[in-house]
Amino acid sequence: MKTIYFDNNATTRVAPEVLDAMLPYFSELYGNPSSMHSFGGKVAYELEKAREKVAALLNASHDEIIFTSCGTESDNTAIRSALDVQPDKRHIITSSVEHPAVRSFCNQLELKGYRITEIPVDQNGLLDMDIYEKSLSPDTAIVSLMWANNETGVIFPVEKAAEMARSRGIIFHTDAVQAVGKIPIDMAKNYIDKLSVSGHKFHAPKGIGALYLRKGTKYSPYLIGGHQEKNRRSGTENTPYIIGMGKSAELASANMEKEGSVVRYLRDKLENEILKRIPNSRINGERELRLPNTANISFEFVEGESILLMLNEFGICASSGSACTSGSLQPSHVLRAMGIPFTMAHGSIRFSLSVYNTMEEVDFVIEKLPPIIEKLRSISPYWPPDSNPHDLTVRTKHENE
Amino acid sequence: MKTIYFDNNATTRVAPEVLDAMLPYFSELYGNPSSMHSFGGKVAYELEKAREKVAALLNASHDEIIFTSCGTESDNTAIRSALDVQPDKRHIITSSVEHPAVRSFCNQLELKGYRITEIPVDQNGLLDMDIYEKSLSPDTAIVSLMWANNETGVIFPVEKAAEMARSRGIIFHTDAVQAVGKIPIDMAKNYIDKLSVSGHKFHAPKGIGALYLRKGTKYSPYLIGGHQEKNRRSGTENTPYIIGMGKSAELASANMEKEGSVVRYLRDKLENEILKRIPNSRINGERELRLPNTANISFEFVEGESILLMLNEFGICASSGSACTSGSLQPSHVLRAMGIPFTMAHGSIRFSLSVYNTMEEVDFVIEKLPPIIEKLRSISPYWPPDSNPHDLTVRTKHENE
Repeated sequence: MKTIYFDNNATTRVAPEVLDAMLPYFSELYGNPSSMHSFGGKVAYELEKAREKVAALLNASHDEIIFTSCGTESDNTAIRSALDVQPDKRHIITSSVEHPAVRSFCNQLELKGYRITEIPVDQNGLLDMDIYEKSLSPDTAIVSLMWANNETGVIFPVEKAAEMARSRGIIFHTDAVQAVGKIPIDMAKNYIDKLSVSGHKFHAPKGIGALYLRKGTKYSPYLIGGHQEKNRRSGTENTPYIIGMGKSAELASANMEKEGSVVRYLRDKLENEILKRIPNSRINGERELRLPNTANISFEFVEGESILLMLNEFGICASSGSACTSGSLQPSHVLRAMGIPFTMAHGSIRFSLSVYNTMEEVDFVIEKLPPIIEKLRSISPYWPPDSNPHDLTVRTKHENE
Repeated sequence: MKTIYFDNNATTRVAPEVLDAMLPYFSELYGNPSSMHSFGGKVAYELEKAREKVAALLNASHDEIIFTSCGTESDNTAIRSALDVQPDKRHIITSSVEHPAVRSFCNQLELKGYRITEIPVDQNGLLDMDIYEKSLSPDTAIVSLMWANNETGVIFPVEKAAEMARSRGIIFHTDAVQAVGKIPIDMAKNYIDKLSVSGHKFHAPKGIGALYLRKGTKYSPYLIGGHQEKNRRSGTENTPYIIGMGKSAELASANMEKEGSVVRYLRDKLENEILKRIPNSRINGERELRLPNTANISFEFVEGESILLMLNEFGICASSGSACTSGSLQPSHVLRAMGIPFTMAHGSIRFSLSVYNTMEEVDFVIEKLPPIIEKLRSISPYWPPDSNPHDLTVRTKHENE
């Protein structure tokens, strides 16, 4: 059965060009870039060229790019480092819809005595900028706000937020894992101090990331050992993947605009047809301020996991929009933070597209999904809603997960 | 020019079988193992099979294996975790010849108020077990001693040392990065609580590691975010490399004994011929208790870096035996800790072999090296040594680097 892959916010296919670029570095050019022989030196040279390509995608300088093993490491490093270099500051500002690499990490820090402020979002997933401004304090060590949400695709005004932090001398970090490669990022035009990148979200492999660190930002490393990455991240460099992420950055720089409009067209078609064909469905997240590839759609009175299982029968890969992969019946913290009614949040599906998707695949989903929802509703005691004796549309309690 | 690669303790060639095993996971089976669709589920299944293979190499249980991004991450995690779960204990025992992933990390911890004891070694690189025993204290949070030294190949009695720690209720960690895949390791027969593995030291790629964590050992994660690795190491799994390290573990399990004796034969030939042909040369490190693949040889009154440059002209890759890659003129901390005379330590070369080396390559080095040393000595003001008015054979001062 053909795989119809609509789960690109979870991970992406490695681009064939990326794989080709990496291949020589496994069994031929396998030297250690730190070694004192030309066999290693050649690899070191190519590694720096890859760094320049990643920097170019962000319009940054090559020495502002630190390679890491993943977005989680970049996020953890960015926050931990800000605390280490400012031991007197004990306050962190973040949002209620961050990825667990920020949110769970901050929960841990809270247990160690740090004060965490989670800025709320409205029902469209937009950040409350008034509360944000009021939360900035002399005790704030770092602000960490995501550029684009992994579940809804909603884009935060991080450049504006960074400017507000900068004017108060506060370090600003953004988890841009879902934004990089999908929308333009220009670090020369903003005041963001640190930015997390994950290769596997834009067609490099799983297991490589980067941390953008603006020149002059105080920093301490998280992994400590050898002299790699100018003492900013120890550990032998993952040279094949660094070369690969360089290539995927180069591809994104060249094709983002064109590919973005193609992907947006497919996504919009998918959304509009689904809304048209399936009653009691809605898009979660502000429609205009969104990534071009993400559609988070709620189907009232059905279970997201049941929908996924039935889509899976047709080879269609999507996500329940929940960061929780343990089979918990709690809907995602993002949708709960947005105050999406329980009956809607439970039946939410994230379709996330890439340039490898086709109109044929979109048509296939549009054809297969309505009967799935209809079937699931036919066995639901709560459907049709006007037959329902209980008020299930109350907002869910915001639990700490 | 053909590359003659004798730098396998720095990094190794990815085995062709490993590359073949990984290849499908880049652009075909690229699903996220945490995803709720069979496309991701199939990857999760293969990932667990790889975990079992890595466990088998150590004779451990699959759930004692946590995948990390590198040996450095495993080392840092092992030590940090022991401190986190025992906040009242402030003492760490390690040795004077550890890899920077342990030694530099401990130096950082010292700055934060932890007390570090570095057990010394003798001139053969052997650990002083009396001092070790006396250093174990109720305040000791963790002992971290390497299984085999990266520069000399000398093997520490970590199983004995772990038993002594266990009897006092102290957590024991070993950096086994250079031992895994080269010598047998049987975790069912020792009391080691944590053990670091690095894939690229045994023909998996650079950028994948593992931390063995004995069942029941108290632990806290270093990278925090999603639920990967049973909440023990967050970050999307590097599935291609995990599959690859599974394969390289399987190859090592099957071939270690046979390959080890071949590699030892080549190494011994290399050493014996060099000692025979080059006056004022010596092997560093206890000859019997060593990895089969490592030869660390000093050539009196020459500079290691000059030797490396001239070997490089013939395509021969080796290492100066120094962890410092910055071009510093300080000889390695390992040789200094062993009290190797300055005039010897400066001219030290590490040849580290693998199963991909051939007798032809060994013969090539044996042919090319003597004239190199002779030429370098001919321009040295200190050669021949009996013409030297200064006593340069004093031991170097042990500096903190």
